[in-house]
Amino acid sequence: MTGDVLGLLRAELGAQVDTSPAALEDARADKSGHRASAAPLAVVHAETVEHVQATLRIASATGTPVVTRAAGTGLAGAANAGGGEIALSVRRMTRILEVSPDDLLAVVEPGIVNADLNAQLAAYGLWWAPDPASRAISTVGGNIATGAGGLLCAKYGVVRDAVLGLDVVLADGRLVRMGHRSVKGVTGLDLTSLLIGSEGTLGVIVGATLKLRRVVPGDVCTIAATFPTVRAAAAASSAVTAAGIQPAIMELMDAASLSAAHALLGLPAPTPGASQLTVQTDGPAARTEADAIAEVLSAAGGTVSATYDRDEGERLLAIRRAMHPAMESLGNALIEDVSVPRSQMAAMFDEIARVEREHGVEIPTVAHAGDGNLHPNFVFQGEDVPQVIWDAADDLFRAAIRLGGTLTGEHGIGLLKRRWLADELGDDQWRLQRDIARVFDPAGILNPGKVFEA
Amino acid sequence: MTGDVLGLLRAELGAQVDTSPAALEDARADKSGHRASAAPLAVVHAETVEHVQATLRIASATGTPVVTRAAGTGLAGAANAGGGEIALSVRRMTRILEVSPDDLLAVVEPGIVNADLNAQLAAYGLWWAPDPASRAISTVGGNIATGAGGLLCAKYGVVRDAVLGLDVVLADGRLVRMGHRSVKGVTGLDLTSLLIGSEGTLGVIVGATLKLRRVVPGDVCTIAATFPTVRAAAAASSAVTAAGIQPAIMELMDAASLSAAHALLGLPAPTPGASQLTVQTDGPAARTEADAIAEVLSAAGGTVSATYDRDEGERLLAIRRAMHPAMESLGNALIEDVSVPRSQMAAMFDEIARVEREHGVEIPTVAHAGDGNLHPNFVFQGEDVPQVIWDAADDLFRAAIRLGGTLTGEHGIGLLKRRWLADELGDDQWRLQRDIARVFDPAGILNPGKVFEA
Repeated sequence: MTGDVLGLLRAELGAQVDTSPAALEDARADKSGHRASAAPLAVVHAETVEHVQATLRIASATGTPVVTRAAGTGLAGAANAGGGEIALSVRRMTRILEVSPDDLLAVVEPGIVNADLNAQLAAYGLWWAPDPASRAISTVGGNIATGAGGLLCAKYGVVRDAVLGLDVVLADGRLVRMGHRSVKGVTGLDLTSLLIGSEGTLGVIVGATLKLRRVVPGDVCTIAATFPTVRAAAAASSAVTAAGIQPAIMELMDAASLSAAHALLGLPAPTPGASQLTVQTDGPAARTEADAIAEVLSAAGGTVSATYDRDEGERLLAIRRAMHPAMESLGNALIEDVSVPRSQMAAMFDEIARVEREHGVEIPTVAHAGDGNLHPNFVFQGEDVPQVIWDAADDLFRAAIRLGGTLTGEHGIGLLKRRWLADELGDDQWRLQRDIARVFDPAGILNPGKVFEA
Repeated sequence: MTGDVLGLLRAELGAQVDTSPAALEDARADKSGHRASAAPLAVVHAETVEHVQATLRIASATGTPVVTRAAGTGLAGAANAGGGEIALSVRRMTRILEVSPDDLLAVVEPGIVNADLNAQLAAYGLWWAPDPASRAISTVGGNIATGAGGLLCAKYGVVRDAVLGLDVVLADGRLVRMGHRSVKGVTGLDLTSLLIGSEGTLGVIVGATLKLRRVVPGDVCTIAATFPTVRAAAAASSAVTAAGIQPAIMELMDAASLSAAHALLGLPAPTPGASQLTVQTDGPAARTEADAIAEVLSAAGGTVSATYDRDEGERLLAIRRAMHPAMESLGNALIEDVSVPRSQMAAMFDEIARVEREHGVEIPTVAHAGDGNLHPNFVFQGEDVPQVIWDAADDLFRAAIRLGGTLTGEHGIGLLKRRWLADELGDDQWRLQRDIARVFDPAGILNPGKVFEA
């Protein structure tokens, strides 16, 4: 059967089919630190919609599983391709097909890197707002397939707010165009939103009509504030939100992550135990808002420094952006991604401290404090997640749910969080979602074992 | 069978079951000007989630169709209940269960009227942004079920941007909670978005977690500009968008609708042939933006008057808000709801003029020019839509599609537009959507004959 599938792929797709050991090895893993136990059959490097369609026709005819991937920067294992599977890469589909400044939209292929797109949009005075921390290496298609978030979400929205339409190849190779080019559109069911965050289980995104924004005029101001405890920093971030000021970015680093990032960047060690909030404001009122935020943070017990200089601000933020490599430098990490209502930030940090105590683990944590999305990092050595880490993660996740939160704010379910999916959705909704996936993919060839695996 | 259903409903729901002629008559129609050919079996006035669940359990057990409604202000016939059907009204479920200013969210029941909710939120300095023209009479549940739009959408978003989660009773009476209370959340498929705009075909919305905004500080400035032709007005509106200024509201009225609204309000007749743009700006930069817009409109050939006074501005907008009653005063109306990319506004008005010429009909048209959503009104006398009107509407819709637009921007498909649904979606996507609806409603008891009727 393996021979048949490979033969069929090669006959129809020729040079797009790659079975080199390096390519197969690469397709086994994303950035989650997890890796499929065996290599996939082949990597198909699709360069056109037709390549994707041909791959899916063959997969469908032969009952072969297909794992769609692009840059492989996911953090939940959703793009890991294993034994007997076709890894379908759309990484080479990088064209910008249209930019319409008057309609504030762009039509792009899925493999274009987020930062590359934005570099090209800048020439029009436009940008696509989603800014996952991985934006320099992650693709627009991957951002959409995972429903990515980022640092700017509280002010500028998540991926779901920034996509007008999608071109999707179905499991059997048919191409369907979902959504609209217009600002409004309610024709039928909103399949565009359904595909966003579907992690390769419903179809393959081969084109996207993106909703753009004009580049925000004015200053970018940055405030860094250190607090004696993480709880104080979290409470201060809630105070900013409650004061009715909308920062563009508000990032929180606890003491362990701040130390790790400083070490990675070769900076002097921070004050022991200190946590940090890094806040940016932008737009015409950036300075007024920065001053108001500095006042709130001071009143909340922070030691505040502020700059109206954009470059100096980027240097302050670089510490936050170093978090993921800093964790990688410590070992493998199970990165949690819980999200809670913003008023519950301090309470969630209390829960993290409790989980650390009760399970005897350290959990360096950063948070997009402006939108209540936390990334507790469970660092471990070796290939497999130790049971104590799973237990601590389980405890942490249930705490987030109790606080009105959710299992994943922006990374997705993939492999790593599927064991908790039904806990959050409830059995009725879990079955409903799985049955919807079956409508798209009756034979279950699209990313099997991910998300909905019971 | 009818007797059985009624008996079962009465036994379980007692006083909630209403078979008075007035109630049955009322449930036959919405504000589309269309009416079911016979009256429904009964109206169930649900006051609790349990009432909705009991109704659906009985409907499911007896195979009885259920048409969910609230205020009956829809414009596509989706809430019209006919012979053999249960009209399930959630209009009495009007409670606000929670307002959380710190988390910018509210949890409400579906029957609360949009304006009533906003009146209560104002005490917190908060508002729910969706503002359909019907906001004084339409409910939050209806706004969500239709995916309503409104006047402020280009700046403040549509319903889909303003809902975090939904509580939904399924066809068999089970309750499912979809979505999140947090800003971010990508756990599983986005069923919340799927339910928004599903027009009663997937489930009954019994609760909604709404994403709120803080009341915008600053002035509200209003500019009215008249133009010698509708094309000139449309081109001027595109020029405002292209200039990078974001008005809160930008409404266009063509000569026929302007005349009708003036007549209804007892105002002096406008200059013959004149079209009008009414633009509002808000927020801290309202005056600067209003001045800039006035300049763009003058340069585009408009006769401009402007006011920084909020009340005077509301008087100018009252002419636009009188459009729907003005059309009702002329006869029955088939209200089209096409939406095009903003750059195509002038071209769409050219197409409307062509359709008027070629089909010999008059099509008074207003448009949410800021987001490219047009409401061409086909006025006719009598109960049934004449064939010439259907033909003209068909021509118009296809023109919108050619311009990259869509059949419905904010009213939904309901009865009136189901004949074109597959034309826009394509047969593959139409079947996919219908099959998803069947996952929710295998027996087809939820609003049958609407949206997906072939």
